[in-house]
Amino acid sequence: MAADAVVLLSGGLDSSTALSWALKVKKWRCHCLVADYGQRHRREITAALRVARRARCPVHRIKFRLPWGGSSLLNRRQALPVHAPSAIGRGRIPSTYVPARNTIFLSFALSLADVLDAENIVVGANALDYSGYPDCRPKYYAAVQKTGRLGTRLGTEKKRPLRVWAPLLHLTKKDIVRRGARWGTPYELTWSCYRGGARPCGRCDSCRLRARGFQQAGLPDPLLG
Amino acid sequence: MAADAVVLLSGGLDSSTALSWALKVKKWRCHCLVADYGQRHRREITAALRVARRARCPVHRIKFRLPWGGSSLLNRRQALPVHAPSAIGRGRIPSTYVPARNTIFLSFALSLADVLDAENIVVGANALDYSGYPDCRPKYYAAVQKTGRLGTRLGTEKKRPLRVWAPLLHLTKKDIVRRGARWGTPYELTWSCYRGGARPCGRCDSCRLRARGFQQAGLPDPLLG
Repeated sequence: MAADAVVLLSGGLDSSTALSWALKVKKWRCHCLVADYGQRHRREITAALRVARRARCPVHRIKFRLPWGGSSLLNRRQALPVHAPSAIGRGRIPSTYVPARNTIFLSFALSLADVLDAENIVVGANALDYSGYPDCRPKYYAAVQKTGRLGTRLGTEKKRPLRVWAPLLHLTKKDIVRRGARWGTPYELTWSCYRGGARPCGRCDSCRLRARGFQQAGLPDPLLG
Repeated sequence: MAADAVVLLSGGLDSSTALSWALKVKKWRCHCLVADYGQRHRREITAALRVARRARCPVHRIKFRLPWGGSSLLNRRQALPVHAPSAIGRGRIPSTYVPARNTIFLSFALSLADVLDAENIVVGANALDYSGYPDCRPKYYAAVQKTGRLGTRLGTEKKRPLRVWAPLLHLTKKDIVRRGARWGTPYELTWSCYRGGARPCGRCDSCRLRARGFQQAGLPDPLLG
């Protein structure tokens, strides 16, 4: 019998590829968790719903706001950073870091997993490209897994240990795109641009990382086709 | 200079006492985090706001729903459990357990702490009376603290280690009430009853634990005066 997984799906390149991995490599029954947290690139949410629908996975939507802000990704009046691709992920935490966002997402995922009896949680985090974010480091995911095992009914009553999977954590964007394409990830439905305009801006960190990934993988980005 | 703390304030007896501890024993500048998560006892929220106002602490409100339910505390059509006081906290996880609720609260607290540069997070959890809840165990809080240290800007960039405090974890309800009264906790403003009617029902687990606490402490419950 196939195991169940809760997949954090943002609608971007990484999380959509992580969903493909869970479906194609692991053959899990996947439940997609889609979050509306006031992100300025609201097209991301539509993209996530389309990717989930294409994969025929049930969607669970959550909505919350961080009244205390603290990120350029939540505030349209704040400038988005523009780094050279080689500088992204080096040095200081970028202004697009949303305080403890991944921890909040994962805590909702733990709640859903607890109700569904799903023993797997999948997140598309990547330690190389986004190493500027503290919540994209391997040690962090081990700590979240431990929190989940200790803090849920699932982790307490069940024999099967809850696991948090970050299958893209150590991959380059090039490898993510290559594998994702092989797994049939519908990249034409995904959305990466932080600005969230009608078309990708091509200048924000997220657009640059995506472009570099497709370029190095030797594949065209279907979103720009 | 006084340190800053984010205090999870539900408006109940325990969290209000934990706030008193943070203010009177630790002398911290406290920021109260109040959550509307669709709890059936919505009077709790009003109680939390009153307790925070009395303490002259700023309030940060968050609002979310768990569309997947999973708790009698979220569903008015589900019966609330009624245990004998001696049976509460023994054996199976009660139906009032809200899946991963404390983890969700704490992740929002980590986010707020990250923005405020507050190195302390205070939670009124109690391992004795609520030992039926998996997210009220000491090991769990250690795991959350580790998650917080690894997953926030505060934990990554700062020298001061983020700490999660659960000062009531090992106290009996009797000791909580005794100490809380000494610290001037305004118990007349708090709310414990799960039913959330005009007056405490006196029958739900939360009412019974509260009554037993005041009784054993030899103090009258001002809410019933």
